[in-house]
Amino acid sequence: MSKRFLDQLVTIVGPQAILTQAEAMAPHLIDWRGRYRGDALAVVKPNSTEQVAAIVKLCAETRTAIVPQGGNTSLCGGSVPAEKSNAVVLNLTRMNKVRAIDLHNNTITVEAGCVLAQLQQVAQENDRLFPLNLAAEGSCTIGGNLSTNAGGTAVLRYGNTRELTLGLEVVLPDGQTWSGLRGLRKDNTGYDLKQLFIGAEGTLGIITAAVLKLFPQPKSSGTAFVGVTSPSQALALLNQLRANCAERLTGFELISRLCLDFVLRHIPNTHDPLTVAYPWYVLVELSESASALDAGELLEQELAIALEQSRAVDAVVAKSSAQSQALWAMRENISEAQRFEGASIKHDVSVPISAIALFVTQASAALAAAVEGIRIVAFGHMGDGNLHFNVSRPLALSDAEFFAQAHRLNGIVYDLVHSLGGSISAEHGLGQLKREEITRYKSSLELDLMRSIKRAWDPLNIMNPGKVI
Amino acid sequence: MSKRFLDQLVTIVGPQAILTQAEAMAPHLIDWRGRYRGDALAVVKPNSTEQVAAIVKLCAETRTAIVPQGGNTSLCGGSVPAEKSNAVVLNLTRMNKVRAIDLHNNTITVEAGCVLAQLQQVAQENDRLFPLNLAAEGSCTIGGNLSTNAGGTAVLRYGNTRELTLGLEVVLPDGQTWSGLRGLRKDNTGYDLKQLFIGAEGTLGIITAAVLKLFPQPKSSGTAFVGVTSPSQALALLNQLRANCAERLTGFELISRLCLDFVLRHIPNTHDPLTVAYPWYVLVELSESASALDAGELLEQELAIALEQSRAVDAVVAKSSAQSQALWAMRENISEAQRFEGASIKHDVSVPISAIALFVTQASAALAAAVEGIRIVAFGHMGDGNLHFNVSRPLALSDAEFFAQAHRLNGIVYDLVHSLGGSISAEHGLGQLKREEITRYKSSLELDLMRSIKRAWDPLNIMNPGKVI
Repeated sequence: MSKRFLDQLVTIVGPQAILTQAEAMAPHLIDWRGRYRGDALAVVKPNSTEQVAAIVKLCAETRTAIVPQGGNTSLCGGSVPAEKSNAVVLNLTRMNKVRAIDLHNNTITVEAGCVLAQLQQVAQENDRLFPLNLAAEGSCTIGGNLSTNAGGTAVLRYGNTRELTLGLEVVLPDGQTWSGLRGLRKDNTGYDLKQLFIGAEGTLGIITAAVLKLFPQPKSSGTAFVGVTSPSQALALLNQLRANCAERLTGFELISRLCLDFVLRHIPNTHDPLTVAYPWYVLVELSESASALDAGELLEQELAIALEQSRAVDAVVAKSSAQSQALWAMRENISEAQRFEGASIKHDVSVPISAIALFVTQASAALAAAVEGIRIVAFGHMGDGNLHFNVSRPLALSDAEFFAQAHRLNGIVYDLVHSLGGSISAEHGLGQLKREEITRYKSSLELDLMRSIKRAWDPLNIMNPGKVI
Repeated sequence: MSKRFLDQLVTIVGPQAILTQAEAMAPHLIDWRGRYRGDALAVVKPNSTEQVAAIVKLCAETRTAIVPQGGNTSLCGGSVPAEKSNAVVLNLTRMNKVRAIDLHNNTITVEAGCVLAQLQQVAQENDRLFPLNLAAEGSCTIGGNLSTNAGGTAVLRYGNTRELTLGLEVVLPDGQTWSGLRGLRKDNTGYDLKQLFIGAEGTLGIITAAVLKLFPQPKSSGTAFVGVTSPSQALALLNQLRANCAERLTGFELISRLCLDFVLRHIPNTHDPLTVAYPWYVLVELSESASALDAGELLEQELAIALEQSRAVDAVVAKSSAQSQALWAMRENISEAQRFEGASIKHDVSVPISAIALFVTQASAALAAAVEGIRIVAFGHMGDGNLHFNVSRPLALSDAEFFAQAHRLNGIVYDLVHSLGGSISAEHGLGQLKREEITRYKSSLELDLMRSIKRAWDPLNIMNPGKVI
């Protein structure tokens, strides 16, 4: 390790903003799920775009790899370095300012290290909604959300992070800063460069700030927990709600009975929302901006129609925001509950919404045939065609025995997803986890196109090497 | 002109699908506004992706420039070749099939040559809405809409063409075909390549087909013509409607009194919708998908509040769809009416919505100072921050005298737009018209990034050369 290089880093960020001791660096070198533990020369925490640019310039000169990191909540190992790496982890959490808020333009300009929950809070204090929400919102940063094009539970109405973004500021792999912080709804003046950085997981540059859309706060909302006989029936319900509620339909989450069983078993103070058990459930959320109509009442009416027309078999509508939160807690605690049931293999996949039911049927059958007693924990954002099709180990197998089959089981799920025109990573990205796997499913032409951009913009391959491509 | 080359083209598309006579080619060589007249070796009309690929391969081998063309309604000369060019015009209008429609996934897969109005019609026949609409919809093609990321009058609710697109099929500059026809709402598996082709005006490849989003048909709509004192008051109205109506707010068009005067003067069967003249107007459109609420009634209520709280001074709400169409005709006939008033210089610009009023004030003053008697014809999609800030010649000047000042007047408008963080092409693209001008306003770094992609993907520079970059 070059003392001179570290001295230069210290000169850029100051001695308090650089970590080099193993213990201090440790939390930055292991991923959230504990599967990837890497090594680094140093962790640096710049507090301005200028500092980021100076670090990148230094790294380019010295051919030093850079791993951009926000809240380090990646589910695919995208935000930690490789083993035995000499990378610099460039942690952006000190760059957490709200630079501007424009209420007439309904935009907010924030730095990459701003924690998502903090951004939601600032929006709310200004009587606006920033609609991105997901499990890690208390610690993930908007820079990470942008770099992975994060999804979450309100995509149906508001879109992915990509759709929420109007402008970016990016430090490029050579240390130049691209100032693309535009707050425009329309700008057709050539290639839309920001789209390449969104979802690139830090392999093309470091997003340092963004202009994001704000929305009106809903005036009312409605939450229901609905029993259905099958994913097909859930689809019929989805179609009805889409036709009659359009954008008001904010969330449409499919949940299997086994998910509910796990939550009821392991999460304190949870109760079955319905009196009878059903094979599948849908958690529906409507939100409404006009005071002329109440989302809860609309949801009641729609569910009455759905029950009458066999698009659901049972339903309960929340009567208070506490009840709504309790229903959402059933959904949000599934992953946590699953931890108590031993090893779990996760698949964050998407297919066309029309193929969800077929996918569930075929994938379930194939996995059951592959591993006796496998427990399928299927849930997710059905309204977006996105399922978290997880599997828990059979009671008869140890965690290690089950994990040993991960690759084979991944293959079964991903081959099916691919055959249905789907994606093997709907909202979590590729990171390290799926970097090899994607080469089985993306055409070599598409991979070549991706690589040609990577080569053109990062010819030294210093930006988050070993991730994505 | 190489006979062998033409013979090979004939072999690919058949003799009926190639034009080489000047007279036959003429309509394909002049742009819609009649400002660009080019030359070409031939106009070819392939009817399949395979034919497009074969043509491109042949052109790559022979270093022949290709100008992709749909309905040839570009407003910036993007779809016609340059003068004295040896290009092949690759016209896609025979590729106009609807390949698939998936009502459960709410997607439609169409070929690039499908006329926009035809696509709207197919959606409607399937009880769905394809929400892109714009003046040229009867002749423009979806391939052109994609290549220019077209906007139109419902962007406020549904977004630009980019936001309506899930997947693309593209013939690349070397003749390979990228099959990216995915119908997924979520897919985070690397760089989102389709985003580069959207808005690239055919400079990176030829879009041959697309998967597009469909939406529920609105169950009711409401249209109002509102008198306001100023763009600032219009902004207050916009904020109220956004807060209370959210996505229901489908259109919010600003119109100056002079626009209305021109329409009333030149378009038969038009009448002032209000009894008193106001300096500015807003055309508001709400649409509603739930039968529980009527968009017209909601609009009445909101306008009552607006009048009471000084966010408008007068308003009329359409009582029938005929009345609604009559109100929209006032807006849609502005460009046509303007033709009767002599030479017009057009500016399709955007600024942050918060800066619209300032822009109108400052631009109007600067132009009035620059040319005595200049007539400012300001209208457009205020809800998107996008104005068509056109100017008609002073009565005292000839068309030629006025046009002679175009470059200077463009500079005044674009410098101001740029200083306000805006765009000199909001929804029309760059084409030939603004290719030089953009270099004054985009950073050299951003232009370099664009050029590096162009070089990586089209190293022979055969795809629509002389456009965009």
